[in-house]
Amino acid sequence: MQPLGGETVFEGKTFSVRVERLRHADGEQVEREIVRRRDAAAVVAYDDEHVWLVRQPREALLRFTLELPAGTLDVQDETALRTAQRELAEEIGKSAQYWQPVISCFASSGYSDEEVHIFAATGLSDVGAEPDPGERIEIVPWPLAALGRAIAECGDAKTIIGLQWLAARRRRSS
Amino acid sequence: MQPLGGETVFEGKTFSVRVERLRHADGEQVEREIVRRRDAAAVVAYDDEHVWLVRQPREALLRFTLELPAGTLDVQDETALRTAQRELAEEIGKSAQYWQPVISCFASSGYSDEEVHIFAATGLSDVGAEPDPGERIEIVPWPLAALGRAIAECGDAKTIIGLQWLAARRRRSS
Repeated sequence: MQPLGGETVFEGKTFSVRVERLRHADGEQVEREIVRRRDAAAVVAYDDEHVWLVRQPREALLRFTLELPAGTLDVQDETALRTAQRELAEEIGKSAQYWQPVISCFASSGYSDEEVHIFAATGLSDVGAEPDPGERIEIVPWPLAALGRAIAECGDAKTIIGLQWLAARRRRSS
Repeated sequence: MQPLGGETVFEGKTFSVRVERLRHADGEQVEREIVRRRDAAAVVAYDDEHVWLVRQPREALLRFTLELPAGTLDVQDETALRTAQRELAEEIGKSAQYWQPVISCFASSGYSDEEVHIFAATGLSDVGAEPDPGERIEIVPWPLAALGRAIAECGDAKTIIGLQWLAARRRRSS
Protein backbone atom coordinates (compact mmCIF):
# COMPACT_ATOMS: atom_id res chain seq x y z
CA MET A 1 0.00 0.00 0.00
CA GLN A 2 1.34 3.34 -1.03
CA PRO A 3 -0.11 6.40 0.72
CA LEU A 4 -0.98 9.19 -1.73
CA GLY A 5 -2.00 11.84 0.76
CA GLY A 6 -5.36 12.98 2.04
CA GLU A 7 -7.34 15.59 3.91
CA THR A 8 -8.33 16.12 7.53
CA VAL A 9 -12.13 16.36 7.47
CA PHE A 10 -12.66 16.59 11.25
CA GLU A 11 -10.23 17.80 13.89
CA GLY A 12 -11.52 17.04 17.37
CA LYS A 13 -10.17 17.20 20.89
CA THR A 14 -9.78 13.43 21.22
CA PHE A 15 -9.45 12.22 17.63
CA SER A 16 -9.41 13.43 14.05
CA VAL A 17 -10.82 12.00 10.84
CA ARG A 18 -8.81 11.81 7.63
CA VAL A 19 -9.88 10.83 4.13
CA GLU A 20 -6.76 9.10 2.79
CA ARG A 21 -5.96 7.99 -0.74
CA LEU A 22 -3.81 4.90 -1.24
CA ARG A 23 -2.57 2.78 -4.13
CA HIS A 24 -2.66 -0.99 -3.69
CA ALA A 25 0.02 -3.32 -5.11
CA ASP A 26 -2.34 -4.21 -7.99
CA GLY A 27 -2.43 -0.54 -9.02
CA GLU A 28 -5.95 0.27 -7.89
CA GLN A 29 -6.36 3.57 -6.09
CA VAL A 30 -8.76 3.70 -3.14
CA GLU A 31 -10.04 6.29 -0.70
CA ARG A 32 -10.69 5.50 2.97
CA GLU A 33 -12.19 7.36 5.93
CA ILE A 34 -9.88 6.85 8.90
CA VAL A 35 -10.07 7.84 12.56
CA ARG A 36 -6.68 8.96 13.88
CA ARG A 37 -6.42 8.65 17.63
CA ARG A 38 -3.64 8.40 20.18
CA ASP A 39 -2.83 4.91 21.40
CA ALA A 40 -4.10 3.68 24.75
CA ALA A 41 -2.74 1.60 27.62
CA ALA A 42 -4.72 -0.74 29.89
CA VAL A 43 -3.77 -2.70 33.00
CA VAL A 44 -4.64 -6.17 34.28
CA ALA A 45 -3.74 -5.50 37.94
CA TYR A 46 -4.29 -8.47 40.23
CA ASP A 47 -3.34 -9.97 43.56
CA ASP A 48 -4.19 -13.35 45.12
CA GLU A 49 -7.89 -12.60 45.34
CA HIS A 50 -8.94 -9.84 42.98
CA VAL A 51 -8.43 -8.19 39.64
CA TRP A 52 -8.90 -4.44 39.96
CA LEU A 53 -11.51 -3.06 37.56
CA VAL A 54 -13.38 0.22 37.20
CA ARG A 55 -17.00 0.98 36.50
CA GLN A 56 -17.59 4.24 34.67
CA PRO A 57 -20.17 6.00 32.54
CA ARG A 58 -19.40 5.75 28.82
CA GLU A 59 -21.09 8.61 27.03
CA ALA A 60 -20.66 7.00 23.58
CA LEU A 61 -22.78 4.05 24.76
CA LEU A 62 -25.15 5.82 27.18
CA ARG A 63 -24.36 3.17 29.79
CA PHE A 64 -21.91 2.19 32.51
CA THR A 65 -19.22 -0.34 31.66
CA LEU A 66 -16.90 -2.55 33.66
CA GLU A 67 -13.37 -2.13 32.33
CA LEU A 68 -9.68 -2.50 32.95
CA PRO A 69 -8.17 0.76 34.22
CA ALA A 70 -6.96 2.46 31.04
CA GLY A 71 -6.18 5.75 29.40
CA THR A 72 -4.83 7.36 26.27
CA LEU A 73 -1.17 8.22 25.77
CA ASP A 74 -1.95 11.91 26.08
CA VAL A 75 1.14 13.08 27.95
CA GLN A 76 3.90 14.06 25.53
CA ASP A 77 6.70 11.49 25.09
CA GLU A 78 5.06 9.16 27.62
CA THR A 79 5.53 5.46 26.87
CA ALA A 80 2.61 3.01 26.98
CA LEU A 81 4.09 1.43 30.12
CA ARG A 82 4.32 4.80 31.86
CA THR A 83 0.70 5.59 30.90
CA ALA A 84 -0.37 2.22 32.31
CA GLN A 85 1.46 2.98 35.57
CA ARG A 86 -0.10 6.44 35.77
CA GLU A 87 -3.63 5.12 35.14
CA LEU A 88 -3.25 2.37 37.77
CA ALA A 89 -2.26 5.00 40.32
CA GLU A 90 -4.91 7.56 39.31
CA GLU A 91 -7.88 5.23 38.85
CA ILE A 92 -7.20 2.40 41.31
CA GLY A 93 -4.81 4.08 43.74
CA LYS A 94 -2.14 1.39 43.44
CA SER A 95 1.41 0.98 42.27
CA ALA A 96 2.88 -2.34 41.16
CA GLN A 97 6.27 -3.95 41.67
CA TYR A 98 6.12 -6.13 38.56
CA TRP A 99 5.00 -5.12 35.08
CA GLN A 100 4.67 -7.41 32.07
CA PRO A 101 3.45 -6.62 28.55
CA VAL A 102 0.48 -8.89 27.75
CA ILE A 103 -0.42 -7.96 24.17
CA SER A 104 -1.01 -4.97 21.89
CA CYS A 105 -3.89 -4.79 19.47
CA PHE A 106 -5.71 -2.51 17.09
CA ALA A 107 -9.19 -1.82 18.44
CA SER A 108 -10.98 -1.35 15.10
CA SER A 109 -8.55 -2.12 12.31
CA GLY A 110 -11.14 -1.45 9.62
CA TYR A 111 -11.30 2.30 10.20
CA SER A 112 -9.11 3.44 13.12
CA ASP A 113 -5.39 3.44 13.86
CA GLU A 114 -5.88 3.29 17.64
CA GLU A 115 -3.63 0.65 19.22
CA VAL A 116 -4.22 -0.55 22.78
CA HIS A 117 -1.28 -1.81 24.82
CA ILE A 118 -2.27 -4.16 27.64
CA PHE A 119 0.02 -4.80 30.62
CA ALA A 120 -0.18 -7.08 33.65
CA ALA A 121 0.69 -5.58 37.03
CA THR A 122 1.41 -7.57 40.21
CA GLY A 123 3.00 -6.92 43.57
CA LEU A 124 0.41 -4.19 44.24
CA SER A 125 0.60 -1.61 47.00
CA ASP A 126 -1.61 1.34 47.91
CA VAL A 127 -0.71 4.86 46.83
CA GLY A 128 -4.15 6.49 47.13
CA ALA A 129 -6.40 7.01 44.11
CA GLU A 130 -6.53 10.43 42.49
CA PRO A 131 -9.18 9.93 39.85
CA ASP A 132 -10.13 12.75 37.55
CA PRO A 133 -13.56 13.71 39.02
CA GLY A 134 -14.81 14.12 35.44
CA GLU A 135 -14.30 10.40 34.86
CA ARG A 136 -16.76 9.37 37.65
CA ILE A 137 -14.87 6.16 38.32
CA GLU A 138 -15.93 3.50 40.80
CA ILE A 139 -13.17 1.06 41.81
CA VAL A 140 -14.32 -2.57 41.56
CA PRO A 141 -12.17 -5.31 43.15
CA TRP A 142 -13.46 -8.30 41.17
CA PRO A 143 -12.97 -11.80 42.65
CA LEU A 144 -10.60 -13.95 40.58
CA ALA A 145 -12.92 -16.88 41.24
CA ALA A 146 -15.60 -15.14 39.12
CA LEU A 147 -13.47 -14.08 36.13
CA GLY A 148 -15.81 -15.79 33.69
CA ARG A 149 -18.68 -13.60 34.80
CA ALA A 150 -16.66 -10.41 34.30
CA ILE A 151 -15.71 -11.58 30.79
CA ALA A 152 -19.34 -12.29 29.97
CA GLU A 153 -20.68 -9.05 31.47
CA CYS A 154 -18.17 -6.34 30.70
CA GLY A 155 -18.81 -5.91 26.97
CA ASP A 156 -15.51 -4.09 26.45
CA ALA A 157 -12.96 -5.51 24.00
CA LYS A 158 -9.68 -4.66 25.77
CA THR A 159 -11.14 -5.86 29.08
CA ILE A 160 -12.22 -9.19 27.59
CA ILE A 161 -8.73 -9.69 26.15
CA GLY A 162 -7.02 -8.91 29.45
CA LEU A 163 -9.35 -11.09 31.52
CA GLN A 164 -9.19 -14.01 29.05
CA TRP A 165 -5.39 -13.80 29.31
CA LEU A 166 -5.60 -13.81 33.12
CA ALA A 167 -8.01 -16.76 33.14
CA ALA A 168 -5.66 -18.75 30.88
CA ARG A 169 -2.68 -17.87 33.04
CA ARG A 170 -4.46 -19.03 36.18
CA ARG A 171 -5.47 -22.30 34.53
CA ARG A 172 -1.88 -22.96 33.47
CA SER A 173 -0.47 -22.31 36.93
CA SER A 174 -3.14 -24.30 38.82
CA MET B 1 -26.75 9.95 31.73
CA GLN B 2 -29.33 12.06 29.98
CA PRO B 3 -28.72 12.86 26.30
CA LEU B 4 -29.31 16.54 25.49
CA GLY B 5 -28.83 16.41 21.74
CA GLY B 6 -25.89 17.18 19.53
CA GLU B 7 -24.62 17.82 16.02
CA THR B 8 -23.28 15.65 13.23
CA VAL B 9 -19.85 17.13 12.42
CA PHE B 10 -18.79 14.52 9.84
CA GLU B 11 -21.00 12.31 7.71
CA GLY B 12 -18.95 9.66 5.96
CA LYS B 13 -19.63 6.57 3.90
CA THR B 14 -18.66 4.14 6.68
CA PHE B 15 -19.17 6.16 9.87
CA SER B 16 -20.25 9.55 11.14
CA VAL B 17 -18.99 11.75 13.95
CA ARG B 18 -21.34 13.43 16.40
CA VAL B 19 -20.65 15.97 19.11
CA GLU B 20 -23.14 15.01 21.81
CA ARG B 21 -24.13 16.85 24.97
CA LEU B 22 -25.13 14.85 28.03
CA ARG B 23 -26.04 15.51 31.65
CA HIS B 24 -24.61 13.19 34.28
CA ALA B 25 -26.52 12.10 37.40
CA ASP B 26 -24.53 14.65 39.44
CA GLY B 27 -25.87 17.46 37.23
CA GLU B 28 -22.71 18.22 35.30
CA GLN B 29 -23.14 18.74 31.60
CA VAL B 30 -20.48 17.36 29.27
CA GLU B 31 -19.76 17.31 25.56
CA ARG B 32 -18.26 14.28 23.81
CA GLU B 33 -16.99 13.51 20.30
CA ILE B 34 -18.43 10.16 19.28
CA VAL B 35 -17.97 7.92 16.24
CA ARG B 36 -21.26 6.35 15.16
CA ARG B 37 -20.76 3.21 13.15
CA ARG B 38 -22.78 0.17 12.25
CA ASP B 39 -22.14 -2.94 14.34
CA ALA B 40 -19.98 -5.74 13.01
CA ALA B 41 -20.05 -9.53 13.09
CA ALA B 42 -17.03 -11.86 13.16
CA VAL B 43 -16.71 -15.64 12.92
CA VAL B 44 -14.49 -18.19 14.66
CA ALA B 45 -14.94 -20.97 12.06
CA TYR B 46 -13.02 -24.13 12.86
CA ASP B 47 -12.82 -27.83 12.14
CA ASP B 48 -10.63 -30.57 13.63
CA GLU B 49 -7.42 -29.07 12.28
CA HIS B 50 -7.79 -25.40 11.41
CA VAL B 51 -9.39 -22.12 12.28
CA TRP B 52 -10.19 -20.20 9.11
CA LEU B 53 -8.66 -16.71 9.07
CA VAL B 54 -8.12 -14.03 6.44
CA ARG B 55 -5.15 -11.86 5.66
CA GLN B 56 -6.02 -8.50 4.18
CA PRO B 57 -4.60 -5.03 3.68
CA ARG B 58 -5.86 -2.54 6.29
CA GLU B 59 -5.59 0.95 4.90
CA ALA B 60 -6.01 2.60 8.33
CA LEU B 61 -2.84 0.82 9.51
CA LEU B 62 -0.86 0.71 6.25
CA ARG B 63 -0.24 -2.99 6.83
CA PHE B 64 -1.68 -6.46 6.34
CA THR B 65 -3.46 -8.08 9.28
CA LEU B 66 -4.51 -11.61 10.15
CA GLU B 67 -8.15 -11.54 11.24
CA LEU B 68 -11.32 -13.49 11.78
CA PRO B 69 -13.62 -13.22 8.75
CA ALA B 70 -15.86 -10.28 9.60
CA GLY B 71 -17.97 -7.50 8.21
CA THR B 72 -20.32 -4.69 9.10
CA LEU B 73 -24.08 -5.10 9.37
CA ASP B 74 -24.56 -3.08 6.21
CA VAL B 75 -27.50 -4.95 4.68
CA GLN B 76 -30.79 -3.51 5.88
CA ASP B 77 -32.57 -5.51 8.62
CA GLU B 78 -29.84 -8.13 8.58
CA THR B 79 -29.13 -9.70 11.98
CA ALA B 80 -25.58 -10.10 13.30
CA LEU B 81 -25.86 -13.88 12.83
CA ARG B 82 -26.94 -13.48 9.21
CA THR B 83 -24.02 -11.09 8.57
CA ALA B 84 -21.65 -13.62 10.13
CA GLN B 85 -23.05 -16.35 7.86
CA ARG B 86 -22.75 -14.12 4.80
CA GLU B 87 -19.15 -13.14 5.61
CA LEU B 88 -18.10 -16.77 6.19
CA ALA B 89 -19.48 -17.66 2.76
CA GLU B 90 -18.09 -14.61 0.94
CA GLU B 91 -14.63 -14.49 2.52
CA ILE B 92 -13.87 -18.15 3.32
CA GLY B 93 -16.24 -19.93 0.94
CA LYS B 94 -17.83 -22.05 3.64
CA SER B 95 -21.17 -22.58 5.30
CA ALA B 96 -21.57 -24.01 8.79
CA GLN B 97 -24.07 -26.42 10.30
CA TYR B 98 -23.73 -25.14 13.87
CA TRP B 99 -23.63 -21.52 15.04
CA GLN B 100 -23.07 -20.32 18.58
CA PRO B 101 -22.81 -16.76 19.91
CA VAL B 102 -19.42 -16.36 21.63
CA ILE B 103 -19.52 -12.81 22.95
CA SER B 104 -20.38 -9.24 21.94
CA CYS B 105 -18.19 -6.29 22.81
CA PHE B 106 -17.69 -2.61 22.20
CA ALA B 107 -14.47 -2.10 20.24
CA SER B 108 -13.56 1.34 21.62
CA SER B 109 -16.03 2.25 24.34
CA GLY B 110 -14.31 5.59 25.02
CA TYR B 111 -15.35 7.21 21.75
CA SER B 112 -17.26 4.81 19.47
CA ASP B 113 -20.57 2.96 19.65
CA GLU B 114 -19.42 0.14 17.36
CA GLU B 115 -20.31 -3.27 18.81
CA VAL B 116 -18.77 -6.46 17.45
CA HIS B 117 -20.72 -9.71 17.67
CA ILE B 118 -18.52 -12.81 17.59
CA PHE B 119 -19.90 -16.23 16.65
CA ALA B 120 -18.42 -19.72 16.54
CA ALA B 121 -19.16 -21.82 13.45
CA THR B 122 -18.60 -25.57 13.15
CA GLY B 123 -19.72 -28.36 10.86
CA LEU B 124 -18.15 -26.54 7.91
CA SER B 125 -18.72 -27.34 4.25
CA ASP B 126 -17.53 -25.69 1.04
CA VAL B 127 -19.74 -23.30 -0.87
CA GLY B 128 -17.05 -21.45 -2.88
CA ALA B 129 -15.68 -18.08 -1.79
CA GLU B 130 -16.99 -14.95 -3.50
CA PRO B 131 -14.83 -12.29 -1.93
CA ASP B 132 -15.31 -8.68 -2.88
CA PRO B 133 -12.24 -8.14 -5.12
CA GLY B 134 -11.82 -4.73 -3.46
CA GLU B 135 -11.13 -6.45 -0.15
CA ARG B 136 -8.03 -8.32 -1.48
CA ILE B 137 -8.56 -11.19 0.92
CA GLU B 138 -6.24 -14.17 1.27
CA ILE B 139 -7.80 -17.22 3.01
CA VAL B 140 -5.54 -18.58 5.76
CA PRO B 141 -6.31 -22.01 7.27
CA TRP B 142 -4.45 -21.64 10.56
CA PRO B 143 -3.44 -24.83 12.45
CA LEU B 144 -5.26 -25.19 15.77
CA ALA B 145 -2.00 -26.50 17.24
CA ALA B 146 -0.48 -23.02 16.72
CA LEU B 147 -3.33 -20.86 18.10
CA GLY B 148 -0.98 -19.10 20.51
CA ARG B 149 1.11 -17.81 17.65
CA ALA B 150 -1.94 -16.39 15.84
CA ILE B 151 -3.03 -14.64 19.06
CA ALA B 152 0.44 -13.14 19.50
CA GLU B 153 0.84 -12.10 15.86
CA CYS B 154 -2.55 -10.91 14.67
CA GLY B 155 -2.74 -7.58 16.51
CA ASP B 156 -6.51 -7.32 15.99
CA ALA B 157 -8.79 -7.07 19.04
CA LYS B 158 -11.82 -9.09 17.86
CA THR B 159 -9.49 -11.81 16.50
CA ILE B 160 -7.60 -12.07 19.79
CA ILE B 161 -10.91 -12.42 21.67
CA GLY B 162 -12.19 -15.13 19.33
CA LEU B 163 -8.94 -17.10 19.33
CA GLN B 164 -8.49 -16.85 23.12
CA TRP B 165 -12.03 -18.19 23.47
CA LEU B 166 -11.20 -21.07 21.10
CA ALA B 167 -7.95 -21.85 22.95
CA ALA B 168 -9.83 -21.98 26.29
CA ARG B 169 -12.52 -24.19 24.79
CA ARG B 170 -9.92 -26.63 23.44
CA ARG B 171 -8.14 -26.76 26.81
CA ARG B 172 -11.41 -27.53 28.59
CA SER B 173 -12.32 -30.34 26.21
CA SER B 174 -8.85 -31.94 26.13
